[in-house]
Amino acid sequence: MKIALLNGPNLNLLGLREPGIYGSETLQDVENLLRRKIHDSGADLELVCYQSNSEGALIDFIQQSRNNGIEYIIFNPGAYTHTSIALHDAIAGVQAKVIEVHISNIHKREEYRRNSYISSVAVGQIVGFGIAGYVMALDYILNVGLGNGR
Amino acid sequence: MKIALLNGPNLNLLGLREPGIYGSETLQDVENLLRRKIHDSGADLELVCYQSNSEGALIDFIQQSRNNGIEYIIFNPGAYTHTSIALHDAIAGVQAKVIEVHISNIHKREEYRRNSYISSVAVGQIVGFGIAGYVMALDYILNVGLGNGR
Amino acid sequence: MKIALLNGPNLNLLGLREPGIYGSETLQDVENLLRRKIHDSGADLELVCYQSNSEGALIDFIQQSRNNGIEYIIFNPGAYTHTSIALHDAIAGVQAKVIEVHISNIHKREEYRRNSYISSVAVGQIVGFGIAGYVMALDYILNVGLGNGR
Amino acid sequence: MKIALLNGPNLNLLGLREPGIYGSETLQDVENLLRRKIHDSGADLELVCYQSNSEGALIDFIQQSRNNGIEYIIFNPGAYTHTSIALHDAIAGVQAKVIEVHISNIHKREEYRRNSYISSVAVGQIVGFGIAGYVMALDYILNVGLGNGR
Amino acid sequence: MKIALLNGPNLNLLGLREPGIYGSETLQDVENLLRRKIHDSGADLELVCYQSNSEGALIDFIQQSRNNGIEYIIFNPGAYTHTSIALHDAIAGVQAKVIEVHISNIHKREEYRRNSYISSVAVGQIVGFGIAGYVMALDYILNVGLGNGR
Amino acid sequence: MKIALLNGPNLNLLGLREPGIYGSETLQDVENLLRRKIHDSGADLELVCYQSNSEGALIDFIQQSRNNGIEYIIFNPGAYTHTSIALHDAIAGVQAKVIEVHISNIHKREEYRRNSYISSVAVGQIVGFGIAGYVMALDYILNVGLGNGR
Amino acid sequence: MKIALLNGPNLNLLGLREPGIYGSETLQDVENLLRRKIHDSGADLELVCYQSNSEGALIDFIQQSRNNGIEYIIFNPGAYTHTSIALHDAIAGVQAKVIEVHISNIHKREEYRRNSYISSVAVGQIVGFGIAGYVMALDYILNVGLGNGR
Amino acid sequence: MKIALLNGPNLNLLGLREPGIYGSETLQDVENLLRRKIHDSGADLELVCYQSNSEGALIDFIQQSRNNGIEYIIFNPGAYTHTSIALHDAIAGVQAKVIEVHISNIHKREEYRRNSYISSVAVGQIVGFGIAGYVMALDYILNVGLGNGR
Amino acid sequence: MKIALLNGPNLNLLGLREPGIYGSETLQDVENLLRRKIHDSGADLELVCYQSNSEGALIDFIQQSRNNGIEYIIFNPGAYTHTSIALHDAIAGVQAKVIEVHISNIHKREEYRRNSYISSVAVGQIVGFGIAGYVMALDYILNVGLGNGR
Amino acid sequence: MKIALLNGPNLNLLGLREPGIYGSETLQDVENLLRRKIHDSGADLELVCYQSNSEGALIDFIQQSRNNGIEYIIFNPGAYTHTSIALHDAIAGVQAKVIEVHISNIHKREEYRRNSYISSVAVGQIVGFGIAGYVMALDYILNVGLGNGR
Amino acid sequence: MKIALLNGPNLNLLGLREPGIYGSETLQDVENLLRRKIHDSGADLELVCYQSNSEGALIDFIQQSRNNGIEYIIFNPGAYTHTSIALHDAIAGVQAKVIEVHISNIHKREEYRRNSYISSVAVGQIVGFGIAGYVMALDYILNVGLGNGR
Amino acid sequence: MKIALLNGPNLNLLGLREPGIYGSETLQDVENLLRRKIHDSGADLELVCYQSNSEGALIDFIQQSRNNGIEYIIFNPGAYTHTSIALHDAIAGVQAKVIEVHISNIHKREEYRRNSYISSVAVGQIVGFGIAGYVMALDYILNVGLGNGR
Repeated sequence: MKIALLNGPNLNLLGLREPGIYGSETLQDVENLLRRKIHDSGADLELVCYQSNSEGALIDFIQQSRNNGIEYIIFNPGAYTHTSIALHDAIAGVQAKVIEVHISNIHKREEYRRNSYISSVAVGQIVGFGIAGYVMALDYILNVGLGNGR
Repeated sequence: MKIALLNGPNLNLLGLREPGIYGSETLQDVENLLRRKIHDSGADLELVCYQSNSEGALIDFIQQSRNNGIEYIIFNPGAYTHTSIALHDAIAGVQAKVIEVHISNIHKREEYRRNSYISSVAVGQIVGFGIAGYVMALDYILNVGLGNGR
Repeated sequence: MKIALLNGPNLNLLGLREPGIYGSETLQDVENLLRRKIHDSGADLELVCYQSNSEGALIDFIQQSRNNGIEYIIFNPGAYTHTSIALHDAIAGVQAKVIEVHISNIHKREEYRRNSYISSVAVGQIVGFGIAGYVMALDYILNVGLGNGR
Repeated sequence: MKIALLNGPNLNLLGLREPGIYGSETLQDVENLLRRKIHDSGADLELVCYQSNSEGALIDFIQQSRNNGIEYIIFNPGAYTHTSIALHDAIAGVQAKVIEVHISNIHKREEYRRNSYISSVAVGQIVGFGIAGYVMALDYILNVGLGNGR
Repeated sequence: MKIALLNGPNLNLLGLREPGIYGSETLQDVENLLRRKIHDSGADLELVCYQSNSEGALIDFIQQSRNNGIEYIIFNPGAYTHTSIALHDAIAGVQAKVIEVHISNIHKREEYRRNSYISSVAVGQIVGFGIAGYVMALDYILNVGLGNGR
Repeated sequence: MKIALLNGPNLNLLGLREPGIYGSETLQDVENLLRRKIHDSGADLELVCYQSNSEGALIDFIQQSRNNGIEYIIFNPGAYTHTSIALHDAIAGVQAKVIEVHISNIHKREEYRRNSYISSVAVGQIVGFGIAGYVMALDYILNVGLGNGR
Repeated sequence: MKIALLNGPNLNLLGLREPGIYGSETLQDVENLLRRKIHDSGADLELVCYQSNSEGALIDFIQQSRNNGIEYIIFNPGAYTHTSIALHDAIAGVQAKVIEVHISNIHKREEYRRNSYISSVAVGQIVGFGIAGYVMALDYILNVGLGNGR
Repeated sequence: MKIALLNGPNLNLLGLREPGIYGSETLQDVENLLRRKIHDSGADLELVCYQSNSEGALIDFIQQSRNNGIEYIIFNPGAYTHTSIALHDAIAGVQAKVIEVHISNIHKREEYRRNSYISSVAVGQIVGFGIAGYVMALDYILNVGLGNGR
Repeated sequence: MKIALLNGPNLNLLGLREPGIYGSETLQDVENLLRRKIHDSGADLELVCYQSNSEGALIDFIQQSRNNGIEYIIFNPGAYTHTSIALHDAIAGVQAKVIEVHISNIHKREEYRRNSYISSVAVGQIVGFGIAGYVMALDYILNVGLGNGR
Repeated sequence: MKIALLNGPNLNLLGLREPGIYGSETLQDVENLLRRKIHDSGADLELVCYQSNSEGALIDFIQQSRNNGIEYIIFNPGAYTHTSIALHDAIAGVQAKVIEVHISNIHKREEYRRNSYISSVAVGQIVGFGIAGYVMALDYILNVGLGNGR
Repeated sequence: MKIALLNGPNLNLLGLREPGIYGSETLQDVENLLRRKIHDSGADLELVCYQSNSEGALIDFIQQSRNNGIEYIIFNPGAYTHTSIALHDAIAGVQAKVIEVHISNIHKREEYRRNSYISSVAVGQIVGFGIAGYVMALDYILNVGLGNGR
Repeated sequence: MKIALLNGPNLNLLGLREPGIYGSETLQDVENLLRRKIHDSGADLELVCYQSNSEGALIDFIQQSRNNGIEYIIFNPGAYTHTSIALHDAIAGVQAKVIEVHISNIHKREEYRRNSYISSVAVGQIVGFGIAGYVMALDYILNVGLGNGR
């Protein structure tokens, strides 16, 4: 089984950008964390990682899950969360299940960050737990998504 | 005379994605349909086809119509219909006339699909007739756009 | 098979009223155009034409399609498009399929012309192509509605 | 004493139109039901029945209650409920008391069916009980309106 | 020169309906008042009077001004003021100039009486002067409309 | 068969509080009225009565209908009508059918009394008939709810 | 009897400012027009004229009508129409009756010119008749305000 | 260290109520699941469980965490999520950290379920993962909250 | 004469909760302050104090003022200020006069704290003076409420 | 120490204007009341009184407090409360503390009186206690502002 | 050629008021800066400076530009930016061109500071550069306004 | 020191597209203008120029300023101004200071061009001065940004 870690605009700056909001760990740290967790779990799970600042490239990646066997996408859409109906449609058009993750608590920030076009096509949404949110999404896949019970 | 068939995000999945909404014919089927219709009409009309998931690439394509002699663009902007002022501006900045086509009846769907930034710079809008909408757009060009009367 | 051409308030003045917006051809011209097109197509199609300024009379006409065998209504509801829930209900209550046509591009006009109570119960909507829009609606019926493929 | 049963647009199709929403009994059935109930009650009550798809005709009917002695109107304004200030004004201008009845539960339907211009000039409103709502209105008149206590 | 006095829904009840708001003089009184004033002015002015509760009939009347030579319409659209885009369009489609009159001060009443679809196609609007408003409209026509200076 | 009469906040003051709006009869009078009506009808119907000013206690009561066999609840939610999503959810979670009753015509009062979170999960709504509204709800149950026809 | 002609901000530029909207006659012309009309009518009416660009000075003027015997104020509040609750309060606090006049048809202009804080405390409102509107206001006072009948 | 599992209105019906939305496991199942997970983790963690339909009782419980040493509250506020500013204030007034859990994906439901008064005072929010969401909240506490790294 | 000091949700934590906003004095301090002030004034005034986190219990308390002779209620409704129409109705249904007090300046806080359902049924509102606001309310009662002049 | 009593537009008419809303005492009475209260308190407090109908003059007065040693301003901004951001800025730019007083309960009046641009820069707000509100503001200054405790 | 430096309410306190927002330089500093810059440029440009807290006085100043030959006005309208339609109208009524300057970045402040009634009648708007914004406006006049090219 | 000139969608058509709005000079003209100005100033300033129609590419460029030493970005975001939260976040995540420039006066255009997601993270905004706006931005950098005083 394959899963993806997909990150949207500006998340390549994680750990560098506004550490007061986003913390000091980098996207590479997140990737390592998930790989170690998968390894520790003993699950036969391949992790594909991708980040882009381009809405179109993110749509391309999601569409490709139709053919490359990705079953779950842990997706932090960054600011496109609030503006991209096209990403909404891309997710609606594939079989892969999406788990939406936000590092910061978007409900404590600007009003325009409260709407998500993604959440209505996602399995669920994890908001505000820092990079631990990515791990929680993986835990969900390992426990529920793989059919191991809970 | 040259015309274009331009499709926005996720329309490359036509026929594959949500067939209950979008039907089972592919974008290649649409292209073939239009080419056959042009051939049958006997009109001297060149058809250029392009699809992209990227807002920027769609703008680039529209801008190039300034130099490549495209006079009409049959354009299904997909989800960018509702969010892209930049596409609006691109159309406003070229001579080519745009006919806006939507496969599904966007008025029966989510509230946020009811606004179109494109329609105010398009000749007109065709909504809800499935892929027949593309053919109706071509009919308009063949009859009215080419000056054959009706 | 029978189809109808139904026009709402002020469309009896077509060709006389605000020609800058609506053009100079009359409703009689539209009717002739459609009859000639039907004749040329060789289809066995009867066309019934009706116009009224009265919301109630338009509802009556639509209701009567239950008994007089009309299968498609090419309907330009004029200003009632934006205000009449009763016409919406009338269409929802009959078997005839409705194709909504607007001569002008209502998206370039006043804000209050952007909402349509009709579109959510119509097959589709054709906006902004002048009286050619009526012809495009007929083309759709001839091609798709009659089951001739496309 | 005279009372009226007044029905607005599309209610002549009751029993025929969208039975999933409106049930399968006709307006004639409603009338018969009310007449039998009046007969059974022994009250000296004349029932006048009228239906129209025309807003103006409904206003005319309400205005005529000034001279024809109608004291109560059981009124289902159909879709005009949500759009007609003129009907509001007609009711405000007569002595007859109006009981507003809706067959379906308008609160479970489209947002635009939640507003009523009629309710603020009606004695009360009965919503969602199917055609039994008409009977409940009649019960109110028989018990309270006729001064029999309850 | 011909002018019209046109009144919309419920104004046939003027003098009878809600005298606290609308006063006790009837529509016939208004007509007499205007005729006497025209007579006194010595102007060669024919007055045509019409009232209807039907939106469609009012549109018909306005359209007919195209052929019957009416140059000014003193128009109290009643409740259709706030709901009828079709009347707006009818006025926009004729040469006759419209003066909008309201007997009561609509700005002191319900919120939904504050919008007028008519005023943007009228010469001007006279609000709140009781039936004297009709006379003021006539004065305007006699002084300015007839070109007598002021 | 068991039915309930359930009343929300401040309805214990019925007859004492704002008699101009709510009348002079008490909640005990309502209860007596319903019991007498049940007795007169000869139906085998047990009536359970409960009132509380506490949202939580009202939810508890509704939930208990799961086990105590109550089939219909005549429910006047008082001010919680407009603010309690939790009551909405409680009703959605039980088999008992709810008939929503309001003594006063809430459509003639403050804007914030026009929304009801209850109506979308109720069979229907009876508004503005004073305490007769409770009787009308009972009539509905006796006639329709018990399957006696109408 | 005394009446006032009161004009708000920028009306001192009447005839000079934006003649396409406001015409070419000056405020002095308006004053002369009114004085001649009063003289011609033979009425014993003193006219006091005042213009200011200052909201406070306009309030002062209105307040002084308490002591100087002004019974009617023909008031064009200019842009303060749309923003000044203080002028609303000043009018509400005096006995003088106010007739609100606007030279241009404010309903054809920016959205923010459609609200008037003045109209709800004015006798009535005259909009869009150019400077003839001032004369119509005077006519109203001469005919109705002075008790001469009509 | 003590943590709490706190559930709001109607969650006592979990597993019984609307299983299509909320699944078939009961609140007792959730409690057992969490206890087993704590036991398996070997952490020295006491779990306190409480559910109430009463807003006031939930506030009382949260306030008591000031004195009873509870450090984390896994809180599903049910429908009070959307209406209770008082619960917001209660959380803001205590040291305990709150993790907000929703079983269903509230973003796919009614518009009024999209606002949360709780999220702006919570560490984070977990939405749509069924009862697994409670486990994910516990995982967060075990991993991050207890300082074990990730 | 009896008066009450009534406090809503979370005010039992006064002095403990968010001292930056609410100060460091407790509700007991407020009570002592008022008792000393009453004693110093020599007025024959009994003070009843109550606090609850439960909306229903607050309604119960207010209702009981009907029988226990309380004439004034100094009421800080806490967060229920902004959400409870039921408290509004309770106050409207009793003779006791309510003085609304808020410790913090609610106008400097979240948007949703700006609306008060209580103020329209209160004598007046005192906002932002810290616990001195309670004393100011008492001063008002001692001076004006007791008829001592000012 | 110096304090000011500052009153905005139309408050010079206090006692004369709309006594049903504002009472029959004049601004001079208020001033006398405050002076007597200061005298009785024995505090060394100079009272400066000013009223203007001009927004600019009120700003000038507030600015001058920078140099004339005024420490508190008891300010009733009248209608400028709802419209003047400039007064907001003036207060934000000086050291003097402002106590906002409204004679009438603005929450029982027009919707547009509910917003205050002043309250967010005021210490607090006193609403609805008639002219006693001014005295309560003075009491606050005497007790809290002067540091005498409470 | 003459140009003006015009400043609205509270800008006389520049350098004194809220230096964190507005900096520590005074309006006199700004004037000196502009005069030196003009002198250095060698342009034959007269600078007229005016500041007022009164909306009316600002309108008077702008109107006078009709006669005193001022061709450009560098205008910081302060808080009147957001509330004064009368200033908008004054600018629309004169030939002088207006350059709108704001010292602070109004887009980072309260929501109500985001609208400008001035910008739609200004040549352009300079926001957020501190007092350097005034200099940039002058640079524009020196370069473009005087026809020196760029 | 390095600065950048960054232009968003459709600005590559500057001088070609809608010259009535945007003028006839090209983006190359702007670049030349800035280079000459830098040269004339004698400042040691390197200018980097970039334009893209792609939101993602613009984000990439801004992010790269972290490493390539760019200190100021003169940024005309074109239509992305109004729709791109991702560009907002990119600017918030870098040290480079952004000066927002718009060629046309966006406040005179469509309503949806009035919001800017960029301005709240920009130093300031220059709107409506044509391509002179770019020069004004450079002037600001040369004068203030380089620390030369003004």
